[in-house]
Amino acid sequence: MTIPERAQLALLLEVASTPKPGNVDRRHEYADLRFEHFLAGAVGAREGLAMASAGDPVGEAFERAVAGMAQQEGSNTQFGAILLLVPLVRAAATGALTPDRADAVVRETTTADAAAFYRAFDYVDVAVAPPPEGETALDVRRGGEAVPAVEERGVTLRDIMAISAAHDGVAREWTGRFERSFDAADRIASGTGPIPDRAARVFLELLAEEPDTFVVIQHDAPTAREVVEQARGTLDGERTPDDLAADLIEKGINPGTTADLVAAGLYIALERGEVQV
Amino acid sequence: MTIPERAQLALLLEVASTPKPGNVDRRHEYADLRFEHFLAGAVGAREGLAMASAGDPVGEAFERAVAGMAQQEGSNTQFGAILLLVPLVRAAATGALTPDRADAVVRETTTADAAAFYRAFDYVDVAVAPPPEGETALDVRRGGEAVPAVEERGVTLRDIMAISAAHDGVAREWTGRFERSFDAADRIASGTGPIPDRAARVFLELLAEEPDTFVVIQHDAPTAREVVEQARGTLDGERTPDDLAADLIEKGINPGTTADLVAAGLYIALERGEVQV
Repeated sequence: MTIPERAQLALLLEVASTPKPGNVDRRHEYADLRFEHFLAGAVGAREGLAMASAGDPVGEAFERAVAGMAQQEGSNTQFGAILLLVPLVRAAATGALTPDRADAVVRETTTADAAAFYRAFDYVDVAVAPPPEGETALDVRRGGEAVPAVEERGVTLRDIMAISAAHDGVAREWTGRFERSFDAADRIASGTGPIPDRAARVFLELLAEEPDTFVVIQHDAPTAREVVEQARGTLDGERTPDDLAADLIEKGINPGTTADLVAAGLYIALERGEVQV
Repeated sequence: MTIPERAQLALLLEVASTPKPGNVDRRHEYADLRFEHFLAGAVGAREGLAMASAGDPVGEAFERAVAGMAQQEGSNTQFGAILLLVPLVRAAATGALTPDRADAVVRETTTADAAAFYRAFDYVDVAVAPPPEGETALDVRRGGEAVPAVEERGVTLRDIMAISAAHDGVAREWTGRFERSFDAADRIASGTGPIPDRAARVFLELLAEEPDTFVVIQHDAPTAREVVEQARGTLDGERTPDDLAADLIEKGINPGTTADLVAAGLYIALERGEVQV
């Protein structure tokens, strides 16, 4: 397999892993966001992932992957996962996939990468937090309209991620050496049994450790903290993962950032040859 | 989406469709042939499908797709489906996807295509029927070793399919204008609800109409006829599709040719824009 093939497979394995309470997986879906939307999202993302592997600018590769992903009727399926995969793919394409080398990719991003990142928001509705006070010109929800402001200020894509890191778990990976992604990979690699089962277990562990920032954005911080407690209780055997899944799906609570971390972890473990399908 | 993207999506939608009694799908698997093997098979097949779309020889494109598909530990996942997709993809790449134009692709195949087809058997164990009396030199199970005999006789890939058409449902599509594949597409297009649900329904209908040739090869003709009767009974409401699925999985009866036809039907419906994910 090639690097973009492994990245695409990671996206597919993530959504195949079940149960991942609150998320779409092969046994759970929402009426308007179904399993097949994620399959189509992974199909469409591949060309952008191949661009990242081939050496195209990180921002352009990301924009292309999101544009491809968005060619299905379920809207945003894997925006955050792709945002994690693109720098990891780039690091893997030029040498060993390590936190140091992934961090170096992030530090090399430019203002052009930031502009492409903003344009990616034109393809799909992504739930994000409002920008900090005084940063409304750089609100990602403006999409391509914010590009002049991005260029005028000369911010890099890493700078943009640093602004969001306080409230967005994916941005925090970008500015924090992909710590939880690599941790997820280690756990998946050291697990036993079929890979989707390992990934589902790791999803629950991550969910029990930190509030999912997507839940904070879509609902609020208390809801996200409650999900942490529920995940802990599930790991302690107070309820089954399937019951938690049914409960969260019913409430529409969708810990999507934690799923993004699992996708990144799956890719790292596949790329380093620590797991094989 | 591009043509190879739609072909890859068809492979993924096929295995996502559930229940398809006896086959691996997102809710059913065998211990040594699991859902994730099919995901990886679809990932690996894409490059060969892209070759078919780009105008590479049909045989080479098929060989490449099978080589890519076989890079997972579940052995043969989608050999028959890819064999149907490659000529359909080629037809779509040069004009409308119709039975006439698919048939024209088949009729243009050469001895070099036949040789590549034989080489594809070196990548994966495929259950096939023994060749007719006097045709042992052309036994596909010989793989690349049979290529000198193929070349000496100057047979085309269509000729090879004609030899197998009597006992292989995929070969019969090649020599019969892909009749059941196009029929499956029409049924999927005219169905209602999510595409995987439509595809599962069409699978059961096809299963009730003709003995699955893969079941004949792996088991015997009476077993295949019994599956037809069971599928009819299921359509008549005598039992649920889930019960039939559990029964066939337990017996290891795997109507793989019918699943191949559904994959081809999904691709045709996607390619013609009759369904959208």
